Amino acid sequence: MKVLITGGAGFIGSNVCARLLTERPFPVEELVVIDNLSLGRKEFLSEYIADGRVIFYQEDLLNFDNILPIFLRHKPDLVWHLSANSDIQYSAVHTDWDLKQGTLATYNVLESMRRANAKKLIFSSSSAIYGEATLVPTPEDYAPLLPISYYGAGKLAGEGLISAFSHNAGLQAWMFRFANIVGRNGTHGVIVDFIKKLRQNPALLSIYGDGLQAKPYLHVSDCVAGILFGFSHAANQVNYFNLGCPGATAVKDIAAIVMRQMNLSNVEIAYTGGARGWPGDVPQVRMDTQKMERLGWRASGTSTQAVERATSELVQQIV
Amino acid sequence: MKVLITGGAGFIGSNVCARLLTERPFPVEELVVIDNLSLGRKEFLSEYIADGRVIFYQEDLLNFDNILPIFLRHKPDLVWHLSANSDIQYSAVHTDWDLKQGTLATYNVLESMRRANAKKLIFSSSSAIYGEATLVPTPEDYAPLLPISYYGAGKLAGEGLISAFSHNAGLQAWMFRFANIVGRNGTHGVIVDFIKKLRQNPALLSIYGDGLQAKPYLHVSDCVAGILFGFSHAANQVNYFNLGCPGATAVKDIAAIVMRQMNLSNVEIAYTGGARGWPGDVPQVRMDTQKMERLGWRASGTSTQAVERATSELVQQIV
Repeated sequence: MKVLITGGAGFIGSNVCARLLTERPFPVEELVVIDNLSLGRKEFLSEYIADGRVIFYQEDLLNFDNILPIFLRHKPDLVWHLSANSDIQYSAVHTDWDLKQGTLATYNVLESMRRANAKKLIFSSSSAIYGEATLVPTPEDYAPLLPISYYGAGKLAGEGLISAFSHNAGLQAWMFRFANIVGRNGTHGVIVDFIKKLRQNPALLSIYGDGLQAKPYLHVSDCVAGILFGFSHAANQVNYFNLGCPGATAVKDIAAIVMRQMNLSNVEIAYTGGARGWPGDVPQVRMDTQKMERLGWRASGTSTQAVERATSELVQQIV
Repeated sequence: MKVLITGGAGFIGSNVCARLLTERPFPVEELVVIDNLSLGRKEFLSEYIADGRVIFYQEDLLNFDNILPIFLRHKPDLVWHLSANSDIQYSAVHTDWDLKQGTLATYNVLESMRRANAKKLIFSSSSAIYGEATLVPTPEDYAPLLPISYYGAGKLAGEGLISAFSHNAGLQAWMFRFANIVGRNGTHGVIVDFIKKLRQNPALLSIYGDGLQAKPYLHVSDCVAGILFGFSHAANQVNYFNLGCPGATAVKDIAAIVMRQMNLSNVEIAYTGGARGWPGDVPQVRMDTQKMERLGWRASGTSTQAVERATSELVQQIV
C-alpha cells in the first residue's frame, strides 16, 4: 500500500511513521510525508529520510498548487491526514488559525485526493467537537455538536467535508475523535509545558485554571494502535470513533507526576484561577469508548498510566 | 434595533426586509443590506432603497477588507446572515463553492461582528447537515451529522463556527435549519426551474431523478415568521431549530401543480432517472418540527399548500 501522511514529522505523525516502518502492520510500498515543520521536526524522521524509507516534502497544505502535484505524483492508496494546529491557546485569540490550519488544509487534502483518485482517508478529529456536552461520558452519537473552541469548530468542519467528499468522490474514511494524546516526540500540551517551565524555574510552576480540569489522556502508542485496529476492522464508507480511554486525569495530578519524575519537591504552584485553562477550554471531558470496545479494541492502560509513561519519555527527551 | 442583513437582496432576504419594514415586529432604527447580487436582485428592494429605508452595499462577503468597515460604521445590534450559495447542483461539481460562499463567508461575518461588537446573530442553516438520516422525521439532536453534499458540509461548518464565536466572543445566536423555502422572489429551486423550463418548452418537462424525491416545503412568509418567533422566544446563548413543516411533497407532484397552474396539459415528462436528483441530493427528507411547536410556533399550512401558494406567486412573477 502507498501511504501519504500529512503532518508526518509531527508528534503523532512521526510515531505513525515509526510504527508503519518497524512493525509493518501492512505492506508499505511507499511512505510519503508532507509537513511544513511549523510544529513537526525533521529529526523525528531523520533515520527514515536518510535511508529512503520516507519521502519527505516540506510544504504547507495551504499551498494547494504545491501539494496537488505530490498527490498526483505518488497516487497514495491511503492518506493519514494528521496535520493540524495543535496550539489551542494560540488559536483562541487568532480566530482564523483553525479555519486555515484545520478547515482549509483539510479541504486541500480532500480535493487533492479526489483529483489523484486516492480513496482511503484516516482523519484525526477531536472530542472538542462535542463542546460542553451535557452527557458524560460522551458517546459518538451525542448531539448537539456545539464546539466552544475554534479548534473544535475546525475539526467539525473537517468531519463534514470528509463526509461530503466520501459521498461525492467515493472516498472511504476513518475519523477518530482523539482524547489528549501524549508521549514520545510530544511538541506541545500540558506535560510538555510543565517540563519546560520546570526546566526554566524548578521553584515555581504556573498552572492555567484551578488545576481541577480533568480529561482523558491516551498514550500515542495506543493512539496509533487504535487507529490501525479501527482501519482494519471497520468497513463503513464513513467510520467515526472516539479514541481515548475511560476516566480522566486532573491537571494538578499531572503536575504532581511531572514534579515527581523530575525529582522536584518544594515547587511553589501558582494557579491562574477559574475553571477553564483558557477560552474555549472544556474543563471536564469524559469519553464514552464503548464503540471501539465493541469493535474489539481498548486502551492498554488508564489515563493516568498514559500520563506517567508519557512523562517519563518526555522528561528524557526534553533537555 | 439596528439590523444588518447579508444576502438581503436575495430570495429570503428581500422577504425579511419587506416584513421588517411593513409589519415592524420590533422597532428598526436602521436596516443595512450587504449583497453581491450574484443571486439577489436590487429591484427586490428598489422601493426601500429609493426612500432610504434600506442602506444598500453591493459587496462580496469574501472581501473581508470591504465588509468589516460596513460593520464598524453601522454597529448593528442584530445580524441576519442569509447569504449563501443556494445552487446545490452547481456546487456538487465545484467542490470549493460552498467552502467559500458558506464557510469562509460565515467566518468573515462572525469576525466582523466580533470586531464591531455586534452581539446577536440569526443564521440560515439547513436540514442538509443531517445527510441521509436513519431517523425520520429527523429531530434537531439527531447524530451523527454526516452531510452528503458540500452545501450541507458548509452549513455544518457554519454552525460550528457560530458556536465557537458565541462562546469566545459573547455572541448570542439563533440557527434555523431550513426546509426547502419557496415563494415570492424565489430565484432558484425546483418550482422556479419547472416554470422556466415550461416557459421555454410547454410540451416537455425534464425532471431530475425519478420524481419520487420528497421533501418538506415551507412558504417564505412562514419562514420569516418562524425566525421572528424563535428569535423573540428562545433565549439560550446558542439556539437551534428545525424550521419546516411535517410531511413532504414529491417532485412529481410539484410538477403536476406547476403544470396545472400554468394551464398546461399534455406535457411530456422525461425523468433523468435514479433516486437522487443530483450528487449530494438527499431523496427523502422529513423534519421533526416538535421543538418549534413546543416553543409555540408551527407552519400555517402543509408542505403541499406551501408549494401551491409559491407556485401561484412565481407563475405571476416569472415571465
